[in-house]
Amino acid sequence: MVKVTVWNEYRHERESESIRAVYPEGIHSQIASFLKEAGLDVKTATLDEPEHGLTEEVLNNTDVLIWWGHKAHKEVSDEIVDRVHQRVLQGMGLVVLHSGHMSKIFMKLMGTSCDLKWREAGEKERLWVMNPSHPIAEGIGEYIELEHEEMYGTHFDVPAPDELIFVGWFEGGNVFPSGSTYRRGSGKIFYFQPGHESYPTYYHPDIQRVIVNGVRWCEPTSRAYPVYGSSQELEPIKREVLQ
Amino acid sequence: MVKVTVWNEYRHERESESIRAVYPEGIHSQIASFLKEAGLDVKTATLDEPEHGLTEEVLNNTDVLIWWGHKAHKEVSDEIVDRVHQRVLQGMGLVVLHSGHMSKIFMKLMGTSCDLKWREAGEKERLWVMNPSHPIAEGIGEYIELEHEEMYGTHFDVPAPDELIFVGWFEGGNVFPSGSTYRRGSGKIFYFQPGHESYPTYYHPDIQRVIVNGVRWCEPTSRAYPVYGSSQELEPIKREVLQ
Amino acid sequence: MVKVTVWNEYRHERESESIRAVYPEGIHSQIASFLKEAGLDVKTATLDEPEHGLTEEVLNNTDVLIWWGHKAHKEVSDEIVDRVHQRVLQGMGLVVLHSGHMSKIFMKLMGTSCDLKWREAGEKERLWVMNPSHPIAEGIGEYIELEHEEMYGTHFDVPAPDELIFVGWFEGGNVFPSGSTYRRGSGKIFYFQPGHESYPTYYHPDIQRVIVNGVRWCEPTSRAYPVYGSSQELEPIKREVLQ
Amino acid sequence: MVKVTVWNEYRHERESESIRAVYPEGIHSQIASFLKEAGLDVKTATLDEPEHGLTEEVLNNTDVLIWWGHKAHKEVSDEIVDRVHQRVLQGMGLVVLHSGHMSKIFMKLMGTSCDLKWREAGEKERLWVMNPSHPIAEGIGEYIELEHEEMYGTHFDVPAPDELIFVGWFEGGNVFPSGSTYRRGSGKIFYFQPGHESYPTYYHPDIQRVIVNGVRWCEPTSRAYPVYGSSQELEPIKREVLQ
Repeated sequence: MVKVTVWNEYRHERESESIRAVYPEGIHSQIASFLKEAGLDVKTATLDEPEHGLTEEVLNNTDVLIWWGHKAHKEVSDEIVDRVHQRVLQGMGLVVLHSGHMSKIFMKLMGTSCDLKWREAGEKERLWVMNPSHPIAEGIGEYIELEHEEMYGTHFDVPAPDELIFVGWFEGGNVFPSGSTYRRGSGKIFYFQPGHESYPTYYHPDIQRVIVNGVRWCEPTSRAYPVYGSSQELEPIKREVLQ
Repeated sequence: MVKVTVWNEYRHERESESIRAVYPEGIHSQIASFLKEAGLDVKTATLDEPEHGLTEEVLNNTDVLIWWGHKAHKEVSDEIVDRVHQRVLQGMGLVVLHSGHMSKIFMKLMGTSCDLKWREAGEKERLWVMNPSHPIAEGIGEYIELEHEEMYGTHFDVPAPDELIFVGWFEGGNVFPSGSTYRRGSGKIFYFQPGHESYPTYYHPDIQRVIVNGVRWCEPTSRAYPVYGSSQELEPIKREVLQ
Repeated sequence: MVKVTVWNEYRHERESESIRAVYPEGIHSQIASFLKEAGLDVKTATLDEPEHGLTEEVLNNTDVLIWWGHKAHKEVSDEIVDRVHQRVLQGMGLVVLHSGHMSKIFMKLMGTSCDLKWREAGEKERLWVMNPSHPIAEGIGEYIELEHEEMYGTHFDVPAPDELIFVGWFEGGNVFPSGSTYRRGSGKIFYFQPGHESYPTYYHPDIQRVIVNGVRWCEPTSRAYPVYGSSQELEPIKREVLQ
Repeated sequence: MVKVTVWNEYRHERESESIRAVYPEGIHSQIASFLKEAGLDVKTATLDEPEHGLTEEVLNNTDVLIWWGHKAHKEVSDEIVDRVHQRVLQGMGLVVLHSGHMSKIFMKLMGTSCDLKWREAGEKERLWVMNPSHPIAEGIGEYIELEHEEMYGTHFDVPAPDELIFVGWFEGGNVFPSGSTYRRGSGKIFYFQPGHESYPTYYHPDIQRVIVNGVRWCEPTSRAYPVYGSSQELEPIKREVLQ
């Protein structure tokens, strides 16, 4: 059974009554809830726990980590970011949601500013499937419609994704590469744009389906970890040369 | 005219007589020399100059930066690395050569360990063209043969390249993705594997040709720098909602 | 100087008065006109000429072919399609415009149905730049706005492009991968979606700029054409075995 | 359970005693045998059966088709090729092995000549994993070594793959993109180079493992088939214009 850890900053829900009305137990609890229903082994972790809830032991027992953060990216300690980074390179999957695009861990993995355009106007978004044979789109129709979502608009300063799964159409005139995959080291990464804290996005069955699909796609692939460094020859070398 | 700055660590050539015999004026001088012959506007910079020779003024007057480093990656200051990183995201081209794969700037841009297998055995390498219509392969035949090169072997822990131009065959039994392009922010990056300090690789006409082609491919594209942040709607939004 | 041949079906403009009002000399003449202003060496060819104007001699003297067709795709002879196909694989560039997505030559190069959604409602399109450092986007701002264009909507049944340059936002709620590059054989291909016959799209300066950039990007790369077939060994083989 | 049909030309094994010695029941039977052991639902089909064994009914009951052909590509009827092509675009997976690179179906899907260099010298091949987190490499070490294989050498005239999983090193000095994935329509395609008829390649446990992994990766993704053609607007359009 895939072991998932859902990490959430968990500040908005405690500080704002209107956000708490949408996610009374926090965004992480709502995400954990539909992942459990899908048969996954789910734990949660939050910023204000010791080591942000991401101890060596927790990470060593995580196949796929989900990341939701927004206003407190800078409070995540560099040590923990390095620890998560190492685990991704070693094969742990990572699903980065919405405003997690500016998290330290995503920026470190992408190597770019990860900046974008945004607008909080409660506008309509329609997420179009661009890659109909991809397992992350499994069970989804031609598009997902969200009555209200924060606009995230191109240009999104990330590397060209390995695979582009969704493109978002926004009522206010923008588009966005809303679902993308990346491989870094031995780890797989899925970025998925929807999920502003003030809208009930994570209650939408298609959004849940995509996140479950994304977790399954990010599962580690078991094989020998690549060996680096000085390496003996596998075939004879004609060493006529060299001082 | 494209303005190129060739950056070199410039330690091997000063510390080792046998290396100095190959590159008496330093690797940077040899690279600068054939770039000048190709009609480019070339300057050089080295590690032990103030600010490693990469002042704000130098970088602001650089279209494409070439990077060669090996044994002193850690001596490059983080401040200068951040400066170069910013310039790449803003559009400056970057050509990373050989052991530059473990430079701080390349690792920061890739987001991975950039580790690989290596062997210093003076073995033969044959660089096969994988993308015959790519301008970086312009004028090159089916392959380039190097009598003696350090082996760099897969797995190379970098993101899948946007374009794979060369694959290296090594006498000792290994292969390597030897020429690759990446786009990061508004900047273009070309990584090219050959060029160990103890072999006369940068005197080889085809290697020179590839580096000149790479510099031209990395030239900045002139257009408005993308605008990020809060953004007004371009089309009317039906604002029925929102608390 | 890059030698361009602009191919047009040239039926709409002769059969419909309203289309002729937009392109009195045909779409090919309007495209040829701005390509000439950009300093290119331009010829035209149309469906009803002998061999559709694409004789061996014409194609052998073409660096980049532009293709506009719509209602008479089936009237293009298979023999000429094979001839163009061969030339693309040998290195000739190909720019496919708008409804050319269902031309025999594009379908043959893509290997898929090339089908899509469409709607002729004169709606607004906004073409967003997705790849700001790409030379095809040179000189373009963040987006191009067209007051009226035919909607082309995803899903577009083509292979994932090598590079995605533009995504189109349509007023009626759709998105489209509007500018894409592909390499096939030694040839480069650029598909660009705008250009319905009933709107003055090819008079728009930014659209013209993109097509000129696309032609330059598609220029053949001069190098030895790859050699195929039976091949002698380059290194000794230990032939202990076999027969 | 995934339904696999293994298609084989089945001529070499009947016409040549030495080939028959390697694959007494035909290559298809050997492949079917290890796929069954892996728990797949496997049938076979061969060239000389009616409709080459690929009736509408067979294809409609096939999730993934495996293709091995060599000397009789031209005897495969265009009608059957079109039928297989349609099924791939609708979602059937396709695993193309070795000399299947010049089959009509692979060429039609790629849109290129699919030509390459070859040499039948019984030389050693070492298949290096280039994408360690890919499920097709699951359970494989850093490389697979084959004592004797036909050389297939770059340049391989196919589109740049969506994912490059293996690169082959050949004793005689060549390299080859030996394992590649492509998506076409709603179908997934995996090309895998090893498997010359005169060597016991399909008895090698790692080769078997890769083919089983490839079949699983190619499984159809269940979702609504994309809708093409004329399409109503999803959002109101300001229709001031036109006619």
